[in-house]
Amino acid sequence: MDNSATTKVYDSVKDIMIKVMTEDYGNPSSLHMRGLEAEKYIKQAREDIASILKCQEKEIFFTSGGTESNNMAVIGAAMANRRKGNHIITTAIEHPSVLAPLEFLENQGFKVTRIGVDENGVISADEVKEAICDDTILISIMYINNEIGSIQPIDDVADIIAAKNPDIIFHVDAIQAFGKLKIYPKRQHIDLLSVSGHKIHGPKGVGFLYVKDKIKVSPVIYGGGQQKGMRSGTENVPGIAGLSVACVESYRNLNEKIQKITNLKDYFTDSISKLDGIRINSRKGNDGAPHIVSVSFEGVKSEVLLHALEDKGIYVSAGSACSSNKAATSNTLKGIGLPEKYLDSTLRFSFSEYTTKEELDYTIKQIEGMLDMLRIYKHS
Amino acid sequence: MDNSATTKVYDSVKDIMIKVMTEDYGNPSSLHMRGLEAEKYIKQAREDIASILKCQEKEIFFTSGGTESNNMAVIGAAMANRRKGNHIITTAIEHPSVLAPLEFLENQGFKVTRIGVDENGVISADEVKEAICDDTILISIMYINNEIGSIQPIDDVADIIAAKNPDIIFHVDAIQAFGKLKIYPKRQHIDLLSVSGHKIHGPKGVGFLYVKDKIKVSPVIYGGGQQKGMRSGTENVPGIAGLSVACVESYRNLNEKIQKITNLKDYFTDSISKLDGIRINSRKGNDGAPHIVSVSFEGVKSEVLLHALEDKGIYVSAGSACSSNKAATSNTLKGIGLPEKYLDSTLRFSFSEYTTKEELDYTIKQIEGMLDMLRIYKHS
Repeated sequence: MDNSATTKVYDSVKDIMIKVMTEDYGNPSSLHMRGLEAEKYIKQAREDIASILKCQEKEIFFTSGGTESNNMAVIGAAMANRRKGNHIITTAIEHPSVLAPLEFLENQGFKVTRIGVDENGVISADEVKEAICDDTILISIMYINNEIGSIQPIDDVADIIAAKNPDIIFHVDAIQAFGKLKIYPKRQHIDLLSVSGHKIHGPKGVGFLYVKDKIKVSPVIYGGGQQKGMRSGTENVPGIAGLSVACVESYRNLNEKIQKITNLKDYFTDSISKLDGIRINSRKGNDGAPHIVSVSFEGVKSEVLLHALEDKGIYVSAGSACSSNKAATSNTLKGIGLPEKYLDSTLRFSFSEYTTKEELDYTIKQIEGMLDMLRIYKHS
Repeated sequence: MDNSATTKVYDSVKDIMIKVMTEDYGNPSSLHMRGLEAEKYIKQAREDIASILKCQEKEIFFTSGGTESNNMAVIGAAMANRRKGNHIITTAIEHPSVLAPLEFLENQGFKVTRIGVDENGVISADEVKEAICDDTILISIMYINNEIGSIQPIDDVADIIAAKNPDIIFHVDAIQAFGKLKIYPKRQHIDLLSVSGHKIHGPKGVGFLYVKDKIKVSPVIYGGGQQKGMRSGTENVPGIAGLSVACVESYRNLNEKIQKITNLKDYFTDSISKLDGIRINSRKGNDGAPHIVSVSFEGVKSEVLLHALEDKGIYVSAGSACSSNKAATSNTLKGIGLPEKYLDSTLRFSFSEYTTKEELDYTIKQIEGMLDMLRIYKHS
C-alpha cells in the first residue's frame, strides 16, 4: 500500500540489468565494440522513451533520479535564463526536490511566487495568470501531488503561458504522474518534464528529464561532456536500460491499468469512508490520481497506526516517504486547509498495478479492527 | 585491456543488487519495516567503507558516481567557503569531472592555478607550496592519472597544507586510485576523497565522497534532505549495496593483488618496449599506477590501432574513455611534453585483477603482427 514511495522492479527490468552488468558492461564513451554495445542500450532507451512521450530522442536526458531531474530543471532553467528575468512561479504543495532548489535560487537573488491550493489540493490557473509578470522566466508545477494525489490543471497553465508569454519555461514534475496519466509534453506545451525510475517498477538511482528542443538549461553536473554536455559522467547503462524497460512495460495496456487502479481506489475510498471518524483527502475517479488515497483518522497518531498496520504486514506512509524520515508537518496537508487535529493523523495509501481487491479488503478489515483500540489507548 | 574505462561487476555485486531490487526494495526514508530494511543496507555500506578507509561512517556520502563526487567536492567546497577566499589550486592533468567544475567556478569569479607536470606526469609539491596564497581555499589533485597512471605526491602536498594553512581544503580525486593503492584519508590529511563504483568491479551510477568531519561542503543536489541534506534524493540502495560489496571485495588481499598487477604491468612494459618505434609514457613498479600503461606508437594513428586490436578481441583506449567519444587532444599527454607526432598515436592499456600473462602475451603478439602493416598502410 506504499507504491508512491517506491515499487518493486519488474522482472524484465531485473533481467536486462543483469545482462548489462555482466555481459555488455562497456563504457559507452569507449571507441571500441564494447563501448558501442553499451551505447546501443542508451540509444534504445532514448528511442523507447521518446516513442512513449511522442518526442525526439535528443530531448531525453538521463539523470540519477527524480530529485536530480527536478534540480536540473529548476536550477538549470533559472540559471540559463536569468538574463531574461528572475521571477519563478510554483505552487505551495511541491515536492522538496523542487522546493529546496527554489530556496537555493532565492538565495541567489531569484523571486519565487507560490500559488496556494483549494481544499482538494488544486491550484487555480487564473492565479497563475495573475502571478505572471515581465520578469517571469519559469513556472514549475507538480502534475500529481505525492501526498494526496491531486491533479493540477497543467493544460490550462500551458494555455495561459502560450497566451501571455510563450518564452516562459514550463516545468512539470511528473514523478508521481508518469505511468499513471498519459502525458505528451509536446502536445501539452510542457518544456521540461521530470520522471523517476523507481516509482514505475524501474531501478532506483535513475530517471530522466525531458528538455524540449531549443529550451536552454544549464547543467548541474559538469565533466566529460556526456549527453551533449548536459549531464556529464559515465552513463548508468544498466539503470538506463532498466528504466527504459520499465517505461515500456508500464505503458503496456496503460488505459486498462489506469482504469483498474482507479476502480480499486474508488472501492477503497468507499469502503474506508464507512469507518467512524474518517476524512478522505483525495478525490475519486478521474478527479484525482488513480493510485493515491490520503485518509485522516480522527484521534489516532499516524505513526501509531502506521506501525500497527506494519504488524499486520501492511505498509503505508505517513505523509510521504520522500523527506528522509522527518515527520515534518506536511505543506500539502496544511495547504488544503486540513484541520490541525488531522495534520498528524493522516496516512497515504498508494496502489500499483499489482494491488488486488483482496489486499484492500484485508487492509480495511485490519484498520476497522484496530481503530477503536488505538483511540482508547490514546485517551487512556 | 581497458579496465580504467570500466570493469565487469563482481558476481557478489550482481547478487546483492538482485536481492535488494527484488526482495528488500523499500524506500529507506519510509518509516515502516520495508524502509528500515533498505536503510540497513545503506548503514552497512557506510560501515564497510568507513572500516576500509579507517574513517567515520558519517563521513561517507553516496553519489551517482565519480563525476558527481568530484562536482560535489570541487563546487561544494568552493561555494561553502568562498567567504574565506576565492583561489583554488589544481594540476594541468586533471580529469574533466574536476576541470569542468573548475571552469564553472572561474565563471563565478574564482581564480584557479593549474600546476604543470614533469615528463612523468608528476607535479612538484614545491610548486604547490609557491602557489598557495592568502586567498587559497581549496587544492584539488588527482591521485592516479587516468591516462598514464602517474601518481601525485599526495602526502607531500598534505604536509605543505598542514605547514602553510591547515584551513585549505584538500580534495583528492581517487577514482583511478581507490583499490589500487591503500588510501587512508584521515592519516594522509585528505579532506575530500572521490571514489567511483564502476572502476572497481562495482555498479555504474554510484560512487561516494568522503567528507572529513567538520569540513564545509555545499550540496549540489537539493531536496528531501537525505544524507543529512548533503545529497538529497531516494538513495540508490541496490547501487550502494553493490558499491560496498565491491569495495570490500577489492580490498580483500589487496597487497597481493597490487603486486600481481604491478608485475603484469612491468612484464607488459618490458615486452612491448622491444617492439620498434615505441615510447612508454608510464613508469614501472611502484613509481606508477599498478594497472595503467600508456604506449605511443610512432607512425600509427591510435584509432586505427585501436580498431585493429578490436578485431582481435582486444579492447583498449585511445587516451581515456571518460570524455564522451571526443578524440580531443589529451591535456595529460600534452602536459608531459609528449612530442606532437605521438599525441594522436597513443593507447592506454589498463589491467584488472583478472588480467593474465597469457592475455598480455596475446596482445603483444597481435600488436607485433600488425604494426609494420599499419605503418606501411599509413604511408601508402
